[in-house]
Amino acid sequence: MLNLLYKSSYVFVLFYYAIIPLGYLTKWWVTIEKMKGNSTILVTGGGGYVGSHTVVELLKNNYTVIALDNMINCYSGNEKPESLKRVEQITGETVTFYNVDIRDREALDKIFKTHKIDSVIHFAALKAVGESVKIPLTYYQNNVGGSATLLEVMAKNGVKSIVFSSSATVYGNPQFLPITEDHPTGQGCTNPYGKTKFFVEEIMKDVCTSDPEWKVILLRYFNPVGAHDSGMIGEDPSGIPNNLMPYISQVAVGRREKLQVFGGDYETPDGTGVRDYIHITDLAIGHLKALEKIFQCDFRSWKAYNLGTGRGYSVLEMVKAFSEASGKQIKYEITCRREGDISACYADASLAKKELNWTATRDVKDMCKDTWNWQNKNPKGFQKS
Amino acid sequence: MLNLLYKSSYVFVLFYYAIIPLGYLTKWWVTIEKMKGNSTILVTGGGGYVGSHTVVELLKNNYTVIALDNMINCYSGNEKPESLKRVEQITGETVTFYNVDIRDREALDKIFKTHKIDSVIHFAALKAVGESVKIPLTYYQNNVGGSATLLEVMAKNGVKSIVFSSSATVYGNPQFLPITEDHPTGQGCTNPYGKTKFFVEEIMKDVCTSDPEWKVILLRYFNPVGAHDSGMIGEDPSGIPNNLMPYISQVAVGRREKLQVFGGDYETPDGTGVRDYIHITDLAIGHLKALEKIFQCDFRSWKAYNLGTGRGYSVLEMVKAFSEASGKQIKYEITCRREGDISACYADASLAKKELNWTATRDVKDMCKDTWNWQNKNPKGFQKS
Repeated sequence: MLNLLYKSSYVFVLFYYAIIPLGYLTKWWVTIEKMKGNSTILVTGGGGYVGSHTVVELLKNNYTVIALDNMINCYSGNEKPESLKRVEQITGETVTFYNVDIRDREALDKIFKTHKIDSVIHFAALKAVGESVKIPLTYYQNNVGGSATLLEVMAKNGVKSIVFSSSATVYGNPQFLPITEDHPTGQGCTNPYGKTKFFVEEIMKDVCTSDPEWKVILLRYFNPVGAHDSGMIGEDPSGIPNNLMPYISQVAVGRREKLQVFGGDYETPDGTGVRDYIHITDLAIGHLKALEKIFQCDFRSWKAYNLGTGRGYSVLEMVKAFSEASGKQIKYEITCRREGDISACYADASLAKKELNWTATRDVKDMCKDTWNWQNKNPKGFQKS
Repeated sequence: MLNLLYKSSYVFVLFYYAIIPLGYLTKWWVTIEKMKGNSTILVTGGGGYVGSHTVVELLKNNYTVIALDNMINCYSGNEKPESLKRVEQITGETVTFYNVDIRDREALDKIFKTHKIDSVIHFAALKAVGESVKIPLTYYQNNVGGSATLLEVMAKNGVKSIVFSSSATVYGNPQFLPITEDHPTGQGCTNPYGKTKFFVEEIMKDVCTSDPEWKVILLRYFNPVGAHDSGMIGEDPSGIPNNLMPYISQVAVGRREKLQVFGGDYETPDGTGVRDYIHITDLAIGHLKALEKIFQCDFRSWKAYNLGTGRGYSVLEMVKAFSEASGKQIKYEITCRREGDISACYADASLAKKELNWTATRDVKDMCKDTWNWQNKNPKGFQKS
């Protein structure tokens, strides 16, 4: 009798410590795999830089993608952004595309009524910091008003999970480094662009408080650079680039004479600003990991994750790395600081590693090599010469 | 020769210290008086509590008023809010009224095209804190989206000055008392309502940065109470009042059984929350002073002013004062704290005194007397029994 009791308790312990967790794991796995195979993701701003690279990774992982974009920052010969046509060439898959603005409630609603959408990745936004200072109302209406309208239409159609393209800019001037996700946000955001990201984060948090069915992941990007390793898609800013890497690569390819380095007197090893650059493909994969997280049965409410490498590089280090990758000399001059710029900013990326099972695997060499490959193959970006 | 030099220097000093400032003063005075007599003010949310009391003061000071309201919080027998009909009875003047929502761009534009509007006082907003937690998107769309649309239509029509109805709630949980205008804002705003006020302030600041022609005054209200001394207009919340004074007065008039005091264990003299109550007529006059300021030739960009008395009263002090003013016993019970409430909040109101030449002149007795007079004459608010 005692022997039997002993044996059954043993079975119980085995069950408790091995079978039950295994059951949970299986359940999650099945959920995730099922979602991967069958789920349909609406990607707003799908024609943009981060959007198009994320669509590639989604398609590679058997997600069905519905992309929308208002095309104001897309080069296009006709009805679909050139970036998404290239995505179709890279993947051999088709992307359903709508030329729709997220402020257009009726058009959005029609998309949700036409497709059974499981979740949304929300990139659509105006993103030029300098421009946002000049036309703030346009930025607030597009980025904040548009996001609120998207959330309303989603709720109306019973789609209550979203991965939001946020930014490290919500941290303002860092109070400590590396920046963790619990660093204060919204203090000292110096430009309307940054404020729109902060406002949308706050709105999404409030939506989660108002309705426990909502699931939100805020992805705070550090500095996305690089391009798809095929060289078929990459960053294609219209006009003069606001960001370092497109500028460097346009100098390398001969489109611009020299790089202006804003500030050589920061408190950094070589005096130039330090940023946490992250390869666009790593960033795109971060969105897939976020989707997997959000599809887990036990995910609730909202959560923010930094997407960065955790390592900062100075402007001059990037110039050197790009020179080596491209074999081109990059002419530059150091000029005065740009208003609103901070000296150094890099992520503590450990939370994404722990909870999303995500880390950046591509280094600065990859970033420069892929940027150069894209720029070299497409000296005028998506516009065919 | 020396004597002449001496005398002319004397004249110069006289000119410098007396004539020039006198010239400036005259110029201001003429500007203000001219504006007073001729200027037309668009009042958004003109049918509301603060709106209607401000319209009275505007009319008394010879401003022409165009009021708009979407009427969702107004009692009305027909096309005009009852509050504004009462305003017309009080003043003997007519108020041009539009039943328009500030999110309706075309309707707003038509108003600006129909009337030569000199400035705007912007009250229109949803204002129930508890409701804002339940339906945050509605609050963001109305208060933030609506304000951005109003600003866009104003700019399009060349009207670039606005007095904004903000709130001490932008200060969050006070870091120091009394609260000055340079107290940090936007940190620890615990509910969407408060965040909408903060967001709109930020948007208006950014608009001023983008275009030096803009003039913005942010009026941060503490706790408006009381009613017009005629007893013809006052606070008329729909449903259960969120604020203390309407609740007390509804208990006094027999509409509600007893007052629930949220929290008796705060670190205040009697344990109940302390607030800076301000008489609605003082508050309304504050808006006229703000208009005068904004019309001064040398006013630039944006400026925030606290409108409060600078003196805090506890809930129990207000109950006692109201009892005395009304001659009614107010039944109350102390219950647990309400989430998001802070213990004490009162203004440093010296900046408004210095720069707007404004101070609150009505005391707690006036606040209670006038509230009671309004409630007693209108036990069901604007709704005729």
